[in-house]
Amino acid sequence: MRSVAIFGVGLIGGSFALALRKAGFAGDIFGVSSPQTIEAALSLGVIDRGIGVEEAVDRADFFYLAQPILSILQIMAATRWPDDVVVTDAGSTKRQIAEQAAESIGNAFFIGGHPMAGKERAGVQNADADLFQGRPYVLCPRVPEDVDDPRFQDLRDWIIRIGAKPVILNASEHDRLVAFTSHAPQILSTALASVLDGIDGASSVAGPAVLELTRLAFSPFGIWRDILQTNEANVSEALSAVIAKLNEIKQILGSDELAQEFRRAASGAQKMREQPAKYCP
Amino acid sequence: MRSVAIFGVGLIGGSFALALRKAGFAGDIFGVSSPQTIEAALSLGVIDRGIGVEEAVDRADFFYLAQPILSILQIMAATRWPDDVVVTDAGSTKRQIAEQAAESIGNAFFIGGHPMAGKERAGVQNADADLFQGRPYVLCPRVPEDVDDPRFQDLRDWIIRIGAKPVILNASEHDRLVAFTSHAPQILSTALASVLDGIDGASSVAGPAVLELTRLAFSPFGIWRDILQTNEANVSEALSAVIAKLNEIKQILGSDELAQEFRRAASGAQKMREQPAKYCP
Repeated sequence: MRSVAIFGVGLIGGSFALALRKAGFAGDIFGVSSPQTIEAALSLGVIDRGIGVEEAVDRADFFYLAQPILSILQIMAATRWPDDVVVTDAGSTKRQIAEQAAESIGNAFFIGGHPMAGKERAGVQNADADLFQGRPYVLCPRVPEDVDDPRFQDLRDWIIRIGAKPVILNASEHDRLVAFTSHAPQILSTALASVLDGIDGASSVAGPAVLELTRLAFSPFGIWRDILQTNEANVSEALSAVIAKLNEIKQILGSDELAQEFRRAASGAQKMREQPAKYCP
Repeated sequence: MRSVAIFGVGLIGGSFALALRKAGFAGDIFGVSSPQTIEAALSLGVIDRGIGVEEAVDRADFFYLAQPILSILQIMAATRWPDDVVVTDAGSTKRQIAEQAAESIGNAFFIGGHPMAGKERAGVQNADADLFQGRPYVLCPRVPEDVDDPRFQDLRDWIIRIGAKPVILNASEHDRLVAFTSHAPQILSTALASVLDGIDGASSVAGPAVLELTRLAFSPFGIWRDILQTNEANVSEALSAVIAKLNEIKQILGSDELAQEFRRAASGAQKMREQPAKYCP
């Protein structure tokens, strides 16, 4: 990695640029984004220069695609990637992006990526060199042998240097797991808040629980449209599991049998807070 | 209010005692609780003295019942309340307590209460004079005319002095609303965490969303058993509404129709964060 082009210099792309610099990356960091974003990114010192796609392809050897998922799919298909460059992305779903890469990326080296980090506010103004600190960072090799390639190891090493924890998963595994840990929670919050919108007077008894469970309901649909469209079957499976569980619980609301669900739930919640035994299998 | 007896000197009862004192209450504050709790409450300066139920009934003119709901129901039925004392409670459901009061409280003056405040950790060690600051505090008069009684106004004034916002609701309205704002959120978190307990590897992609949505899953069943048993029909209604919404959303996951649900959800989430126009109707 000598010269990096960030496509989409928003919260994630901008934070990756800042994190790389803080971790000691000394090469050029170019930004490919809208003129307003480039202006903001330059004034914040997030990138060294704004350039177009063509020039980026001429000059960079590492490409970080941090746009919305459908834009990543488009730019992958529309770009003539030079042989031997490394392309990675930060999209929240991985299978369709992996398929597009297989089709479009030629002899470039592709590694799917998904940093499990974020903030309530998007945009390069909120970019933060420490955004990835302590967070899992999923890497999806095209084939298992890719993890032994020096280019894969180079990216993994940078991810460790920026403070994140690399997790190796294949794209389909990734998409199924995030349907449960990220996409279903979003839809639960959306559904609860949408129901509450119709309950007159509910705000007069709003306590901390409802504020916590409805915070995600402010998430922008633009981002979620792409995520849900590219992970529909898995999200549907995860929602079906939660709906089935809710129906089960509804049947035993007044009963001591519910104690068992509370125990299972505490165990599940605890697991989410424990570091997986092995981040890089 | 000259002499206060707190039944159940835990997080809520202890905080009410500390808050009263901080707000300038100069009378006695007695505690009725287990010997260990009384010892802790005395050493923390939360109460002036620990006494038994009999002595409390002889000496106090204001009773604050802050035990679990089923214990409140029991103590109400088992106690011979003197005429003219004021009895209030801090139970999370109000209708069954109101019914028990009508049956057991004789000529004492009963006011249902529910402070919308809490902490992750229970117990008098976590009691806090500022726990109620800025939080809604529901008062349920037995009949609408009670709000004009000086005893009701005296309690309402103390609630304002401890920094809380009195909300007047009848017990049935209260129970229906909290089913949506408190009990359904608890069950959603329990159901999600219970499902996640069975998804191997999910913790490797656990981001902030799932941590937020599963925090309530650590709530102790002991408290929730009483709440759900005494509000079963309303919680069932609220869960049915959320389940129906989840099923609707599942049908349109890949569609732009979902934009409308995201808008409605943002509106609902916003309403939960806005101060109701009128706390005391």
